[in-house]
Amino acid sequence: MVKGNTRFNHLKREYVFPIIEQKLADIKSSYPDAEFLNLGIGDVTLPLAPSISNAIQQAALNMTKPGQMYGYGPSQGYGFLRKAISSHKYPFLSPEEIFISDGINTDIVNILDLFHSSCRVAIPNPSYPAYLDSNILVGRKRKIVWMPCNEKTGFVPEPAKGKVDLIYLCSPHNPTGVAMTRNRLAAFVSYAKEHDALLLYDNAYEAFVTSNDVPRSIYEIPGAQDVAIEFCSFSKSAGFTGLRCSYTVIPKTVTALFGKNLHCLYKIWLKRQSIKFNGVAYPIQKGQEATFKPQGQAELESQISYYLAQAKSLKAGLKAQGYTCFGGEDAPYIWWKTPRKDLSSWDFFDLLLKKCRLISVPGSGFGTEGTGFIRLSAFTSPEVVEKALKQIKNLNLS
Amino acid sequence: MVKGNTRFNHLKREYVFPIIEQKLADIKSSYPDAEFLNLGIGDVTLPLAPSISNAIQQAALNMTKPGQMYGYGPSQGYGFLRKAISSHKYPFLSPEEIFISDGINTDIVNILDLFHSSCRVAIPNPSYPAYLDSNILVGRKRKIVWMPCNEKTGFVPEPAKGKVDLIYLCSPHNPTGVAMTRNRLAAFVSYAKEHDALLLYDNAYEAFVTSNDVPRSIYEIPGAQDVAIEFCSFSKSAGFTGLRCSYTVIPKTVTALFGKNLHCLYKIWLKRQSIKFNGVAYPIQKGQEATFKPQGQAELESQISYYLAQAKSLKAGLKAQGYTCFGGEDAPYIWWKTPRKDLSSWDFFDLLLKKCRLISVPGSGFGTEGTGFIRLSAFTSPEVVEKALKQIKNLNLS
Repeated sequence: MVKGNTRFNHLKREYVFPIIEQKLADIKSSYPDAEFLNLGIGDVTLPLAPSISNAIQQAALNMTKPGQMYGYGPSQGYGFLRKAISSHKYPFLSPEEIFISDGINTDIVNILDLFHSSCRVAIPNPSYPAYLDSNILVGRKRKIVWMPCNEKTGFVPEPAKGKVDLIYLCSPHNPTGVAMTRNRLAAFVSYAKEHDALLLYDNAYEAFVTSNDVPRSIYEIPGAQDVAIEFCSFSKSAGFTGLRCSYTVIPKTVTALFGKNLHCLYKIWLKRQSIKFNGVAYPIQKGQEATFKPQGQAELESQISYYLAQAKSLKAGLKAQGYTCFGGEDAPYIWWKTPRKDLSSWDFFDLLLKKCRLISVPGSGFGTEGTGFIRLSAFTSPEVVEKALKQIKNLNLS
Repeated sequence: MVKGNTRFNHLKREYVFPIIEQKLADIKSSYPDAEFLNLGIGDVTLPLAPSISNAIQQAALNMTKPGQMYGYGPSQGYGFLRKAISSHKYPFLSPEEIFISDGINTDIVNILDLFHSSCRVAIPNPSYPAYLDSNILVGRKRKIVWMPCNEKTGFVPEPAKGKVDLIYLCSPHNPTGVAMTRNRLAAFVSYAKEHDALLLYDNAYEAFVTSNDVPRSIYEIPGAQDVAIEFCSFSKSAGFTGLRCSYTVIPKTVTALFGKNLHCLYKIWLKRQSIKFNGVAYPIQKGQEATFKPQGQAELESQISYYLAQAKSLKAGLKAQGYTCFGGEDAPYIWWKTPRKDLSSWDFFDLLLKKCRLISVPGSGFGTEGTGFIRLSAFTSPEVVEKALKQIKNLNLS
């Protein structure tokens, strides 16, 4: 029999979303008429902005016309989009340092192709589960160093003690909803410089940053251009979760040692992408381009403000009821501490589902340090927030 | 310094397409007004079919309406599309055995995630270069067994001697343009059954099959459902090269041994996709669905007939001029033997470029057994074929 990759046997974590779906299906079968309030998965709830939709439609229409752009595009993405990104977001970089992809998830796991199997990897705990899983699948089960994100650390990571090679950062952080300040990020850049490490910076939620001392890009920190790869998307800020378009920034100054030779990683990534990836659909890239135009920018800002307003009122409402919660100021997530020590994440999840008809995500699904918390998503409407707070009040648990 | 994946140093092959582009740029700078006839890269030249474009536009428009489908879709692809594929193409399989992806290239390299590093791999020579490169990148440089596809073998592979675990097949074969008959495919299914091997069947060109004894799916061969994964796309048949949508078929009966446990590979692939992939854009999946409706089917057939007509007249024209060439009956590619032994693939390429203003692809770019051949693509118009044949006639080399 063909031998499989036995590292799949090492994927031990709890897959929370299928469990949540099962629990929801079970309760729905008992209460078919009940209304459920979904503050679970971090998925957009507002319709796609008109200017993005129009750009996609126009591109799809143009593809039916002779002489238009309809064949293979560049693996790296079309120049028009890479130029728009570099000029709007990274005027200090060139379009060659920008790579269009179908999602941060894809690139942040595939980037591992570039590194030696001996690399030690630091991962925040709790964090987005694909960081860990993808490292397990390439054989780094014993090379993981955890960076706790708990009350003691202010729910964002601190540089690991000792030497690591790759460091995952996500700020504003998922699932805690807390963003790293300039100083805290600068500590990681210093660490990377000192230890010859590389930062893999997941910047999925930058559009939600409101605090002055929170950078919206790792490259706002001096020296970061030598030690950081940044992963960005429009999934959450422009409703692209169903459209799949993101970009990865690899400055020319980021290098690694391939045997005896130092290579610029943007060149190696380009080679990797040329072998393994054929680019993103042309109409989708035109849709992403529209987000940089004045109408697109205005539509985005309005969507972000809408979601942030829900985060604000949800957090304020919970606090007013005496609960302890964090995040929600620079991110669409509230990190809610379970109100009693004997209530685990799943206990609290079950209670909220049964008594309040409220769907959340148990913090333990993001790592051991998430135990005792649940994540609430602010991708919802004022009506749902109001109903949720009312139901929680009836629970009378705080 | 961070250590890179030194397997990138082992990618030694010639990257023909960048070289072709450079040569073309050079000659264009000398002859800026010359018209070049592109029979090189296998990319579609007809505009997108209206029914596909309409489906994409409608989906993008619907995404702007409240309550429509616009968030994360399933990693595996939407049920509506998997059902359409299984009912139209695989009535003997269930939608769970179909996985939507952004291209055969992506899946046929990523499928390697599922297998043990000890697996030995058989690859046709010549063949699509990503088969080899992706195996080198996962460390199988010394585990490759070549299956020659030359005049002796009829330009399709024969089962390797000795034991291999994974076998790449592409039929109709790229670059030779020759398809495997039922008997020749059956020999591979027998080999796989006998040696506990797995067939990775690249079915990119099935829509071009015209011969009666050439299967359009590996599953037409009895027993193949136990030993074959099939990779399909609409890139070439429905002009999806710029839209990026394909699908992979993993029957429930295909298994592998993960340590002591036998697992169904469709379940392991689903786990892999859930970790590393977030699915294909919703409007693009709606576009692919349209290819299964009556109008879409008619549009596809008309495009295929158009390209096959060019293949036919190109091959007939070359033969009439006394040249030796193969393929082009069940595939959009002509495999043209260089007319003199002292002319290498690149020599002939250069001659055609300089004297005929004709862009081809040197066969040596697809493997050592491609030496002495060039590939011509039939993704072109009757006018270009006519001009090409006229220019070749003036060359007077046969």
